[in-house]
Amino acid sequence: MSKEITARADDYSQWYLDIVAKAGLASNSKVRGCMVIKPYGYAIWEKIKDDLDRRFKETGHVNAYFPLLIPKSFLSKEADHVDGFAKECAVVTHHRLMNDPNGKGVVVDPSAKLEEELIIRPTSETIIWDTYRDWIQSYRDLPLLINQWANVVRWELRTRPFLRTAEFLWQEGHTAHSTEQEARDESIQMLDVYADFVENIMAIPVYKGEKTDHERFAGAESTYTIEALMQDGKALQSGTSHFLGQNFAKAFDVTFLNENNLKEYVWATSWGVSTRLMGALIMMHSDDQGLVLPPRLAPLQVVIIPVPKPNDEIDAVVADIMQQLKAKGISVKYDEDRKKRPGFKFAQYELEGVPIRLAIGKRDLANGVVEVARRDTKEKNQTPLEGVADYVENLLEEIQQNLFGRAKTAQQESTHIVDTWDEFVEVIEEKGGFAYAHWDGTTETELKIKELTKATSRCLPFDHPLGGEETAGKCILTGKPSSRRVLFAKAY
Amino acid sequence: MSKEITARADDYSQWYLDIVAKAGLASNSKVRGCMVIKPYGYAIWEKIKDDLDRRFKETGHVNAYFPLLIPKSFLSKEADHVDGFAKECAVVTHHRLMNDPNGKGVVVDPSAKLEEELIIRPTSETIIWDTYRDWIQSYRDLPLLINQWANVVRWELRTRPFLRTAEFLWQEGHTAHSTEQEARDESIQMLDVYADFVENIMAIPVYKGEKTDHERFAGAESTYTIEALMQDGKALQSGTSHFLGQNFAKAFDVTFLNENNLKEYVWATSWGVSTRLMGALIMMHSDDQGLVLPPRLAPLQVVIIPVPKPNDEIDAVVADIMQQLKAKGISVKYDEDRKKRPGFKFAQYELEGVPIRLAIGKRDLANGVVEVARRDTKEKNQTPLEGVADYVENLLEEIQQNLFGRAKTAQQESTHIVDTWDEFVEVIEEKGGFAYAHWDGTTETELKIKELTKATSRCLPFDHPLGGEETAGKCILTGKPSSRRVLFAKAY
Repeated sequence: MSKEITARADDYSQWYLDIVAKAGLASNSKVRGCMVIKPYGYAIWEKIKDDLDRRFKETGHVNAYFPLLIPKSFLSKEADHVDGFAKECAVVTHHRLMNDPNGKGVVVDPSAKLEEELIIRPTSETIIWDTYRDWIQSYRDLPLLINQWANVVRWELRTRPFLRTAEFLWQEGHTAHSTEQEARDESIQMLDVYADFVENIMAIPVYKGEKTDHERFAGAESTYTIEALMQDGKALQSGTSHFLGQNFAKAFDVTFLNENNLKEYVWATSWGVSTRLMGALIMMHSDDQGLVLPPRLAPLQVVIIPVPKPNDEIDAVVADIMQQLKAKGISVKYDEDRKKRPGFKFAQYELEGVPIRLAIGKRDLANGVVEVARRDTKEKNQTPLEGVADYVENLLEEIQQNLFGRAKTAQQESTHIVDTWDEFVEVIEEKGGFAYAHWDGTTETELKIKELTKATSRCLPFDHPLGGEETAGKCILTGKPSSRRVLFAKAY
Repeated sequence: MSKEITARADDYSQWYLDIVAKAGLASNSKVRGCMVIKPYGYAIWEKIKDDLDRRFKETGHVNAYFPLLIPKSFLSKEADHVDGFAKECAVVTHHRLMNDPNGKGVVVDPSAKLEEELIIRPTSETIIWDTYRDWIQSYRDLPLLINQWANVVRWELRTRPFLRTAEFLWQEGHTAHSTEQEARDESIQMLDVYADFVENIMAIPVYKGEKTDHERFAGAESTYTIEALMQDGKALQSGTSHFLGQNFAKAFDVTFLNENNLKEYVWATSWGVSTRLMGALIMMHSDDQGLVLPPRLAPLQVVIIPVPKPNDEIDAVVADIMQQLKAKGISVKYDEDRKKRPGFKFAQYELEGVPIRLAIGKRDLANGVVEVARRDTKEKNQTPLEGVADYVENLLEEIQQNLFGRAKTAQQESTHIVDTWDEFVEVIEEKGGFAYAHWDGTTETELKIKELTKATSRCLPFDHPLGGEETAGKCILTGKPSSRRVLFAKAY
């Protein structure tokens, strides 16, 4: 089974595609750039979704649903937004098909042309702020703390399952506030919610920070981001939160009467994470044998395999273990299939990233033990049947911590403080990872660096990535003064 | 508050729109036929979704996600399907906008025309069966039991929030089987899941049955339906389940090797319910004061209101009651707002359909009682503070049963067995409700009946709707022989 997976060392990109395909996470469709999320992949996404949804609700947000289709003219109402989003998108121009008068099949009915074209949402700020105008009159209607789970379409040229697809699933929060400070606090709060989820549930360490002017969301005043580092040394933007100022309120004329009965424009935020997180999850922990899942996100946490085959004695012991594990809220499956050999099953569940495998044979039973294999380190050992549920429960926690710990170590080891252009190029082109470097603060230099090395500025981190002191210095490219360092990396 | 709602007797249709708007369930958008589902409406939909999703999983189904966009040519692969679905739909023809060279705003870039147009899914049989071809090789890959939660678009001419919108949310199950019997059993099983949910959770009685040839889903061999009856005497199709035979397998060439290593076409079902259920829910139970929600679907089951205002003594008693209710899994809110009078709050929560309201004043406390008002009957009485949590728990159950019971009575009273054309016309045009009548079995007669009365055949019920014996007879319109009766009604 694992032989079908390309080794990371041979071709990292193919390794990723192999895992997506062979672990049953997604498959291609006939529609350019659109994937099918298969049941196993969707089960992981559901766990991501449920956990985030709970966190959004705990921070006072409610869900709603806004239209998929946006009138073309809405996109051009916010000047920056149109440049960022009105370009590569799916445009609906007609509302009817008819039988082809010249032959077989169906053709577009030319008489069913829409008066104004509709765009499939690439993001929903415009349609939502057009709606908020009717919902907000007074400071008593604020804050409005709304989230939407939805599909969006961006006509990407080069696509890769989960990481970049024409259609993807996401959540987008859109909040409205009466003061600038409250909106700024909200945008930071949601970045923290993302970082906490990604680190503690997905076991992926991230740097929190602010984007540069050039990398900012189209229509935002500040864009905050969490940046993760993949095994190949490339960064992956994993979630963003935007302070939108009053830009959308002004574009869509959304005002409120404040406590002094004066009219003011509303302050806004938006924030989102997407099925891209699935890509981060796959690339962060997996190995040449297949997917590795952190226990807190694994749809199946423990699999039990009879060696070589089930029998009444093994079945009875397994039933007992399963009951104990389920009582602890641990998901567990007994694979009784008699047609498949244990070795085949071992490889299959390794491929699928199931965190713990228990194997039970006749001799084990005689000795009162069970074999426990952990997916993260592939270590195997024997543990007494007595107390196995506690052992498994602790081991799941240990695996979760180990995955985060080793990812954190890799992140720290791959974050380089560089002071010269040569060091910068060496990090970007050879070592891989983040280069924490001084930069003169201009978009011009940022673009030049990108042109020369393909590295982009990832963020101005809130905290020094290696725990040091921030100091002023000189731009690695232009030598001009720099007030602080910026994280650069090649990125997905 | 309630004065703003049009009375049912004055204008039933406006009454419905008023409740949707004033209870905060949905609002219109600028996009023709597309609504915004507001947070309160969405919270009810989430409860519907979560309960159904659990039932689907309990019956062995898993979720997945397929592309929003379908190549135009897919729709014409299944001959009947194209006639049913390829007509009024949203057609994507271009993938890029550009700045208008002649002025402001953006226009469609003519150079970004798609080679083949894409249709926003009106339903997903075609794209899913095109995918299943790659997933199914052997009988060991079957059954495939997959569900999808998604948005779909059908370009409806006349729309009404929840009941008929251009875009709506739904789930669509698509299963693949190795035998006809298994597929037939699946389609009936899922109809039963729907009926059980709609009756026990939504408190809406339904008739289960099969659609006539004319009313069958485009591409199905049998379409099963659950039909509910609204307060205005019109039927509402609330969920359908289709046995698709091998039609889609043949259209998309999906075969499997059976246990004898022989190639066979796969057998299929599909089944769905949508946000239309929200429309049924609103119309089934509500009254001229607003929404009435069955306790099992109410996002908020109990509201507690201090009379006239909160004070320390009331707060302490309420905190205790809330703790007891929450311990029982009952959702409860204490409305401490000092700016609003109790009467205003009473009307607001009535409008929103909160099943139980507790009001607590000084005198109540002195007497050791609390006032309990139930939304379904609007009865009020006093109950001792001691044991109030048990009282509320029982009352919620009583309300649930009462709503179902009175709906069931209305359904039975509005189901008329008719034997002549005059009786039929009297039921359809005056009394309202279902007419259970003999019909000669031809589409021609069915269409003639529709033309003359606007009544359509709703289903051939599995069981006699009033518990009687099925007998042969004569068609009410043509007098030709009829082997059994059919349920007719005007319908949404």
